[in-house]
Amino acid sequence: MSEPPTHMSPDEFRRAGRLVVDWIARYMEEVERYPVLSPARPGEVRAKLPPRPPAGGDGVEQWLSDIDEIVMPGITHWQSPNFFAFFPANASGPAILGDLLAAGLGVQGMLWATSPACTEVETHVLDWLVHMLGLPERFRSDGAGGGVIQDTASSASLCALLAARERVTGLASNEHGVGGRRLVAYTSDQAHSSIEKAVKIAGIGRENLRLVPVDADFAMRPDALAQAIAADRAAGALPFFVCATVGTTSSTAIDSVRTIGEIATREGLWLHVDGAHSGSAALAPELRWVNDGLELADSYCFNPHKWMLTNFDCDCMYVADRAALIKSLSVLPEYLRNRATESGAVFDYRDWHVPLGRRFRALKLWFVIRHYGEEGLRAHVRRHVALAQSFKTWVEGDARFELAAPAPLSLVCFRHRGGDEANQRLLDELNASGRLYLTHTRLDGKLTLRMAIGSTRTEQRHVEAAWHAIRELAPD
Amino acid sequence: MSEPPTHMSPDEFRRAGRLVVDWIARYMEEVERYPVLSPARPGEVRAKLPPRPPAGGDGVEQWLSDIDEIVMPGITHWQSPNFFAFFPANASGPAILGDLLAAGLGVQGMLWATSPACTEVETHVLDWLVHMLGLPERFRSDGAGGGVIQDTASSASLCALLAARERVTGLASNEHGVGGRRLVAYTSDQAHSSIEKAVKIAGIGRENLRLVPVDADFAMRPDALAQAIAADRAAGALPFFVCATVGTTSSTAIDSVRTIGEIATREGLWLHVDGAHSGSAALAPELRWVNDGLELADSYCFNPHKWMLTNFDCDCMYVADRAALIKSLSVLPEYLRNRATESGAVFDYRDWHVPLGRRFRALKLWFVIRHYGEEGLRAHVRRHVALAQSFKTWVEGDARFELAAPAPLSLVCFRHRGGDEANQRLLDELNASGRLYLTHTRLDGKLTLRMAIGSTRTEQRHVEAAWHAIRELAPD
Repeated sequence: MSEPPTHMSPDEFRRAGRLVVDWIARYMEEVERYPVLSPARPGEVRAKLPPRPPAGGDGVEQWLSDIDEIVMPGITHWQSPNFFAFFPANASGPAILGDLLAAGLGVQGMLWATSPACTEVETHVLDWLVHMLGLPERFRSDGAGGGVIQDTASSASLCALLAARERVTGLASNEHGVGGRRLVAYTSDQAHSSIEKAVKIAGIGRENLRLVPVDADFAMRPDALAQAIAADRAAGALPFFVCATVGTTSSTAIDSVRTIGEIATREGLWLHVDGAHSGSAALAPELRWVNDGLELADSYCFNPHKWMLTNFDCDCMYVADRAALIKSLSVLPEYLRNRATESGAVFDYRDWHVPLGRRFRALKLWFVIRHYGEEGLRAHVRRHVALAQSFKTWVEGDARFELAAPAPLSLVCFRHRGGDEANQRLLDELNASGRLYLTHTRLDGKLTLRMAIGSTRTEQRHVEAAWHAIRELAPD
Repeated sequence: MSEPPTHMSPDEFRRAGRLVVDWIARYMEEVERYPVLSPARPGEVRAKLPPRPPAGGDGVEQWLSDIDEIVMPGITHWQSPNFFAFFPANASGPAILGDLLAAGLGVQGMLWATSPACTEVETHVLDWLVHMLGLPERFRSDGAGGGVIQDTASSASLCALLAARERVTGLASNEHGVGGRRLVAYTSDQAHSSIEKAVKIAGIGRENLRLVPVDADFAMRPDALAQAIAADRAAGALPFFVCATVGTTSSTAIDSVRTIGEIATREGLWLHVDGAHSGSAALAPELRWVNDGLELADSYCFNPHKWMLTNFDCDCMYVADRAALIKSLSVLPEYLRNRATESGAVFDYRDWHVPLGRRFRALKLWFVIRHYGEEGLRAHVRRHVALAQSFKTWVEGDARFELAAPAPLSLVCFRHRGGDEANQRLLDELNASGRLYLTHTRLDGKLTLRMAIGSTRTEQRHVEAAWHAIRELAPD
């Protein structure tokens, strides 16, 4: 028999683990000083890596040295308090440690039986979140509903679409494939690109996704939705799914879930609500208007990995009727059969999403909730909203700029009045400066800058410095 | 503005991180002593959790105490050297530390621009693996192919199926939906359940998946595949996809990729090869027969998270023509547009899989390869194969038992000659003893025990002890 490979001993793991923990702690202290957007050019990182795999025997000192020399110049610092791009992906100490513990335990929770705690802590913590966010009780696991951690809202939307497809066809699509009567899905023309991706993956086809027009605030026009449904029915198609967005990626537009839900109920459509970014706002009772109408939804998701201090990946998806989801995704081969599954007394989360295997992601969510508590998480959300509201008033007070959309929460869309070219130049100069990182969108056809406030350590001084840089580099 | 929430300070993170690292090191030392299969009953873990979320302020000591008291009794120990169930999910120190560093950096690599290093290290390490495993050069990123980390082989199979669907329909399915001409996919009746799941998700339908019969060794019969394709063509359907398995989950059956590939080439089918578990065998040159014919494949995947010491999740998927995959999955909204993407000089991995967001999973793979090196990883695979081959001879030497399938690698399928009931009782008693954990399958209609050897710390003495327990509890 060949020699056993040299595994890292527990003692060596202790030593190396401390060095990595210390490296991360130092990164937390210093992240603010890095240029936010990586200045690396394509191929620059790869060029520093050896063309052939190493012979082995490298230790933690060499890894960390290469992280410093090779990796760090190629990092865009999502954890910088000066990161205002895209959407936040705010990490935190408790979440990192929960993830670490999950890696150390190394369990794979595809079935309840393959680690009961992996399933039960997840179900339980997701029930806690129903309470913490004031979500409808029908999403709780002790009724017909329940929550599950998905990797991303893209996957949650896909699973919701599949459950809707199977509900409307009585599982015939799973059996015979999509085809026959034309299925039509609806979302606004401001919805996330994952809806289009899901519609393609599920075999529905992009041309059967109606991008419903929006109002002046970029929210879906329910009247236009109702008209589209009627027109499709008249043409012989079968409307089956609508996705409302509470806080679009582009501009935090808030669709009227209640009105859309009433239409969905009347028309027999599955209503999925995507609250990926903005859903966390409901931690604060005064912001629970984001949940208005949610009791009409069949499924809902929000991402603690965006704005609830929980490391990526962690999307919480809820369904009102878990059987509809499970029936759509369940396949049970002999080698996965077991007594607990057959008793019907347990959840096997593999039937709630695309992958079979799964990590113990609930640990990080559990630690975050225990560390911050309801009050701490509320304060976090309130602080970002307050900072964004200040930023909004500063924009309004500078005649060179205009707001491009309502900014009800923590994202402010604004633009220089000088037109697309001026805004593009301003954006490029700001990002090249390394002082902050902003991204853009296009609203009413115009290039628009997005100031997304939500990093773990973003304080007033960072937002002030960002505004200072913007004014400094903006043309008169 | 509300008070900022109390984030864990870098100093507190240092302290808490050490405690968690120490906890994991102790777990590594003690994991062997735990009963492998959790004895928890449904609801037992949840019953110990408070019904309401905590007020906050809990620290690492309380978390670890609850892990010990509440979570550990509900853990099935995948990292135990006495875990022989399902398939291995072998973790290692370097992988845990790579994952930790990824969590600490907290970057989200959906686009090259959102952290160039996250993409480039991944592409580079996956090219290394082409070399290390002796995979076809066409899978390298410097030609038309390339590799990407998916969460699981289930997702890789789905993406392969989607790319195949779009290739055969000229992207018409994405545009108009599945329908019109009937698409048919093929795999063996021993293939993983994820193929059936993928066919349902993609709107192809279960009845359009042909489960091709197998030979006496449970490998797909290429003659039966050819016949099925011909019959479907004659019936007006459009064969488009075949998945060959190199090492089935049930019994490590090895489909003839070469013969199936020749048929696929002749018939214009996309060939996906699923080497999720057994693919890592190719680390050892003398086991590279598992790659035979792989140069005919359009896509391939294997899971370092199964048998290459890399923590879940980490599936490596390769494609020969990356454009086919990317075209199938790409959607580009305005808010994700950027210069690097438009230059065409970079990979944006969000277009290679279902989710938009992604972690820096390449770090753990990088650290594993650096720590063990090619020789260390080879020794690891060889050791497990040698242990399994010993176990096989022990089974053959005991007249009460019979082998149920060839055992070319690290999984031995065997059964007591006393029939299903005797085997079920034996399995239940073994698993209830806590001394080891085995699972079952059904081969030739008979209940069969599976001895899957592949845990990081499984040594000869553990396999001997397992065999001792099996003989002790087996009826005469």
